[in-house]
Amino acid sequence: MAAGSTFGNIFKIMTWGESHGEGVGVVVDGCPAGISLTPEDIQIQLNKRKPGQSKFTTQRKEDDEVAILSGVFEGKTTGTPISMVVYNKTQRSSDYSEIAGYYRPGHADYTFDEKYGFRDYRGGGRSSGRETIGRVAAGAIAFKILDVLGIKVNAYAKEIGGISIDYNRFNMEEKENNAFNMPDATAAEKVAEFASQKMKEGDSVGGIIECVISNVMTGIGDPVFEKFDANLAKAIMSIGAVKAFEIGDGFEASKVTGRINNDSFVMKDGKVTKETNHSGGVLGGMSDGSDIVFRAAVKPTPSISSVQKTVNKSGEDIEVSIKGRHDPMIVPRAVVVVESMAALTLVDLIFGNMTSRIDRIVDFYKR
Amino acid sequence: MAAGSTFGNIFKIMTWGESHGEGVGVVVDGCPAGISLTPEDIQIQLNKRKPGQSKFTTQRKEDDEVAILSGVFEGKTTGTPISMVVYNKTQRSSDYSEIAGYYRPGHADYTFDEKYGFRDYRGGGRSSGRETIGRVAAGAIAFKILDVLGIKVNAYAKEIGGISIDYNRFNMEEKENNAFNMPDATAAEKVAEFASQKMKEGDSVGGIIECVISNVMTGIGDPVFEKFDANLAKAIMSIGAVKAFEIGDGFEASKVTGRINNDSFVMKDGKVTKETNHSGGVLGGMSDGSDIVFRAAVKPTPSISSVQKTVNKSGEDIEVSIKGRHDPMIVPRAVVVVESMAALTLVDLIFGNMTSRIDRIVDFYKR
Amino acid sequence: MAAGSTFGNIFKIMTWGESHGEGVGVVVDGCPAGISLTPEDIQIQLNKRKPGQSKFTTQRKEDDEVAILSGVFEGKTTGTPISMVVYNKTQRSSDYSEIAGYYRPGHADYTFDEKYGFRDYRGGGRSSGRETIGRVAAGAIAFKILDVLGIKVNAYAKEIGGISIDYNRFNMEEKENNAFNMPDATAAEKVAEFASQKMKEGDSVGGIIECVISNVMTGIGDPVFEKFDANLAKAIMSIGAVKAFEIGDGFEASKVTGRINNDSFVMKDGKVTKETNHSGGVLGGMSDGSDIVFRAAVKPTPSISSVQKTVNKSGEDIEVSIKGRHDPMIVPRAVVVVESMAALTLVDLIFGNMTSRIDRIVDFYKR
Amino acid sequence: MAAGSTFGNIFKIMTWGESHGEGVGVVVDGCPAGISLTPEDIQIQLNKRKPGQSKFTTQRKEDDEVAILSGVFEGKTTGTPISMVVYNKTQRSSDYSEIAGYYRPGHADYTFDEKYGFRDYRGGGRSSGRETIGRVAAGAIAFKILDVLGIKVNAYAKEIGGISIDYNRFNMEEKENNAFNMPDATAAEKVAEFASQKMKEGDSVGGIIECVISNVMTGIGDPVFEKFDANLAKAIMSIGAVKAFEIGDGFEASKVTGRINNDSFVMKDGKVTKETNHSGGVLGGMSDGSDIVFRAAVKPTPSISSVQKTVNKSGEDIEVSIKGRHDPMIVPRAVVVVESMAALTLVDLIFGNMTSRIDRIVDFYKR
Repeated sequence: MAAGSTFGNIFKIMTWGESHGEGVGVVVDGCPAGISLTPEDIQIQLNKRKPGQSKFTTQRKEDDEVAILSGVFEGKTTGTPISMVVYNKTQRSSDYSEIAGYYRPGHADYTFDEKYGFRDYRGGGRSSGRETIGRVAAGAIAFKILDVLGIKVNAYAKEIGGISIDYNRFNMEEKENNAFNMPDATAAEKVAEFASQKMKEGDSVGGIIECVISNVMTGIGDPVFEKFDANLAKAIMSIGAVKAFEIGDGFEASKVTGRINNDSFVMKDGKVTKETNHSGGVLGGMSDGSDIVFRAAVKPTPSISSVQKTVNKSGEDIEVSIKGRHDPMIVPRAVVVVESMAALTLVDLIFGNMTSRIDRIVDFYKR
Repeated sequence: MAAGSTFGNIFKIMTWGESHGEGVGVVVDGCPAGISLTPEDIQIQLNKRKPGQSKFTTQRKEDDEVAILSGVFEGKTTGTPISMVVYNKTQRSSDYSEIAGYYRPGHADYTFDEKYGFRDYRGGGRSSGRETIGRVAAGAIAFKILDVLGIKVNAYAKEIGGISIDYNRFNMEEKENNAFNMPDATAAEKVAEFASQKMKEGDSVGGIIECVISNVMTGIGDPVFEKFDANLAKAIMSIGAVKAFEIGDGFEASKVTGRINNDSFVMKDGKVTKETNHSGGVLGGMSDGSDIVFRAAVKPTPSISSVQKTVNKSGEDIEVSIKGRHDPMIVPRAVVVVESMAALTLVDLIFGNMTSRIDRIVDFYKR
Repeated sequence: MAAGSTFGNIFKIMTWGESHGEGVGVVVDGCPAGISLTPEDIQIQLNKRKPGQSKFTTQRKEDDEVAILSGVFEGKTTGTPISMVVYNKTQRSSDYSEIAGYYRPGHADYTFDEKYGFRDYRGGGRSSGRETIGRVAAGAIAFKILDVLGIKVNAYAKEIGGISIDYNRFNMEEKENNAFNMPDATAAEKVAEFASQKMKEGDSVGGIIECVISNVMTGIGDPVFEKFDANLAKAIMSIGAVKAFEIGDGFEASKVTGRINNDSFVMKDGKVTKETNHSGGVLGGMSDGSDIVFRAAVKPTPSISSVQKTVNKSGEDIEVSIKGRHDPMIVPRAVVVVESMAALTLVDLIFGNMTSRIDRIVDFYKR
Repeated sequence: MAAGSTFGNIFKIMTWGESHGEGVGVVVDGCPAGISLTPEDIQIQLNKRKPGQSKFTTQRKEDDEVAILSGVFEGKTTGTPISMVVYNKTQRSSDYSEIAGYYRPGHADYTFDEKYGFRDYRGGGRSSGRETIGRVAAGAIAFKILDVLGIKVNAYAKEIGGISIDYNRFNMEEKENNAFNMPDATAAEKVAEFASQKMKEGDSVGGIIECVISNVMTGIGDPVFEKFDANLAKAIMSIGAVKAFEIGDGFEASKVTGRINNDSFVMKDGKVTKETNHSGGVLGGMSDGSDIVFRAAVKPTPSISSVQKTVNKSGEDIEVSIKGRHDPMIVPRAVVVVESMAALTLVDLIFGNMTSRIDRIVDFYKR
């Protein structure tokens, strides 16, 4: 549908806002009543995507302060729509007047013009990274819900510029200590070196984000078109710059045989469990009780200062060099966005799962 | 939502049916009037997924004959729902009585039981490959629509059991000549050898399907959550056994720098084009005029005759060997399913794109 | 949306079929697992709309025998889509060849042609009363669900041809004893007389159907756009020939003052109740614990044998007299359709209500 | 769905806000690009629902100034979501502390508590009339679209307190000259007298709003569940205080015979037209080229200063008298809300109708 800024079926969100418009925001419709919620709950998450926290992210200062405008009363959600807004403060539109006239390679300038006839070119307009503020703000509420259900979502940089973490050195806490959200200090150091070099060359780097969701109840997701992994794939692929998605062993699974890829079921502490987790926690589109494990491939930032060929709106071949303060890599700031989209997807599916059995429905209403 | 068998927003389908129930089918709601449509149009596509066409697919005989029950009058669609059914003929339910009691590794038996409390275990029930008949039947109508718009969708096996095609030998017509839908005769021969060996070992193999969509108008897909590639990802990942999706360079894009990954725009014959197509035909979630290129990773068939560990419904660890006539690989028969899901996705997005500009809407109604 | 044959958000149905095509049917997606269901459960409901049961309904013989094709295993729903079909048996297409060329007054012939360019004219095609078979078949499943929740839905003819029931003589069981589904034998006699006269004159009559839903839990329906009564209104107004909908006192409420129309709350047996029920059981769009009471106005059958003016497809003014075996009134057979649509609406809203409070969600999953 | 504040399938809106929260607003997702739009376009419509314009509406001062936060660039819509907000300025929450403890008759206090466990009681919270600001703001954009398509939507008070307009004196311009939006000065005078009396008695009055939509193209709306009139019914019934909906002759149609109710088709100026319009412009759920005519019954304002019985949250029977500045009637201010909901419904259906024929789709894309 043309209405592309709406996500979710039951826990539904609508995001809005352009990079250099009045602000960016989101409305959450379908949030249950009774969840304690403060602006701080949202702010903590937004701060994770804030730029300017190291030399490897854009040096733009974005003081993204969120306000909750509705749906919360006396500190708790009321069940009515929650509207959240972050006003844009430090837009310098003049920075962008130049790009109005041509199409930046790797960006959506050309396709926006083709689809809509024109575009708000300032800072990328709707296709700016600032669009993710709405996702993260809504995601913060999803996390509150997952929290009371005991579910944890953890994403991190698995690889940047081709430099991967070593699982023998894996330390989730370490990801807070480096600029890359990498759970391996040694890998992070190598990335710092490599990325510095590329920045000097006016170039940018990509990477892979991995996400683990633990303690998900079984049976979440639905057969056929609404599989858990299919919904995750859409949610994650909807993040700008993400070019691939895999669950469990993903592409690797296609290269091995059934004997290797099948996960044997075994009894453990009186419970059905899987001996391995090649499936990534999903069988037939429904959660199987193991950790949900997925990965997203993020392309290198398209905004680079190196000279590039492109065309302008008059249909002339030209050469350009993108100016401005751009992230040399998207991965570190995208980690919280991946977590947020995973949380939004999961909450929607958990809610959708409540009507799978008539006896549970009767129990629910007969209490 | 629990209602997992519905796909599409404007061109909407609902599939139904179990492997060993009365039949399988689909209803298409939202198909435009005036499309010439015969049962043969559907049958041709269904025959592409028919088993028993080589020793590398299941030897079950499935004479899948489709009937159109509604929505077509005097050879043309009327704009009302099109109901199509394929009755199940040769079910031998007794074959499956054994698997009622345990959970086959790599299958959805366990998750179905967890979600719904019990399952139709005969032949996998709803999670059987026969579920894809509804997708392919509906896809056949989508192809008729794409056809009048001049759009082509072509998928093929890019890799099976780790053996990849060589693009220097790429020949699309060749895919009809071998059992694997591989556009490279030499690779197909190697696959035949490898797969034969694995079959003897009671094992199975996976692979990668690549799909190219050509001649798509620009601007299809929507920014933010309804990106073309995000919708494709969900559609393709919803196919059983698919574990990964990538568009354009996909995971490879995450390993290179911006200079390499950015596609330069150049004027060609007075038109804006891209010099390369690392993006896979999508920028900012909207089609950019280049070919749409994506890949899906398919896991090896989970049904293998080798001995495997698992648990039964009484909570006991047991050993099993899956009997019956199973495909040693899913890839060849899944090619048409990938094409069908791509076509269904594309038609829905093309329809959704018609309201992107007010002047075009006015033109439409002012004629 | 163009996809007009889909109803419901969680408990979702898609109906299909034309009067003189192969058959009519429905697929239900999102039905919980574990409901005992047999073809007889469906057949009982379908028989209520069967024609030929009195001289006041069409004398066409329609032996509508339903088959369940999927979604039921060992007598219980499995949670997967339930496909139901009624094959058309006694179509005599030749009866209708005449109406192909002109537009019957009060029918959808003209608008179908305008929207779709042509139409399946046989017996009204998709806009035939046979379309309601899908609604009633799906409604039968909704009734099974309401039944286990203790909810009753009862509709009846309140008025036919301007002759109303007298509530002092109201007797629900009486509605089974007359041809009109009227819970008042005296009124039914008067209707019989009046309708006989109109039939002789080649004319037809309309009426009002009233429906009472009892034992609905409080809080069903949602504020703002998804109010219980708004959803009911759409569901009921979607039935062919229905021209008006009112809940509670409806139009009468607009004529009195607040003092009269407000329902006082009072404690009764330790429970909050309403002293009166002018509201019809809904306050602010949510069920308030009282009976849900609504009415639908049904227009007289447009197919009449009297001479009428109309135009043909060549744009000529002509005179016609509709031949064939038509119902002289729609009300009696529409009663079960009203009940079915109410049941479908209610089940969908009851399912949607399960996520209104976080504590209830936690309870649900923590069991 | 619990997500009750979302409306529309293609032209989609999400409203938010409580009477005494930070503000109220709406996001419009799916608005085509290229529509000229200024805050004034919105403000003009909002002013029509502004209170305090006569003694017959609440004397509360609500200076509802709208701001557009996104989706508009250089005076034109961009195709991305349009976020609009009206900040609440003059809330005096203390006015409402009393009603926190009991359930006002005729209001949603009780059902909100039942559904969500608690409520924002200040000024009615989400069920306040201020909720309609989002509807009217979004409706203003819908009107811009209808305008370029040449479609007019006109609603007015047909009846207040049982006093009806006389169609012989009907004058649309007159509705601007009286406090009631009544197109008949004489009737308006009588209403003024009657309503003044009722206000003195601490009572309130209801009425009927009629709406005429002219110049709608044929074929809008879809057969079966998505009929034009069914969608209108839901939209209009979703407005607080509306208890009934009828299209064309509505309830009156149920009392006459087919001969009277059928509209004959006749050729006029070479076009198919209807001699009468008992149908209200809709046949088989699709627009038939005549004016769309519908009516909504509005109940008397439930907030009255007379003493009423009710219960408090402790489960005690009490007597209350609602204080504060309330509208003695809802009809006059609801007229623009009815128009707005009709416009939102119509735009969504017009957009949805663009895919009804394959030849038109091909034309659209082949230009």
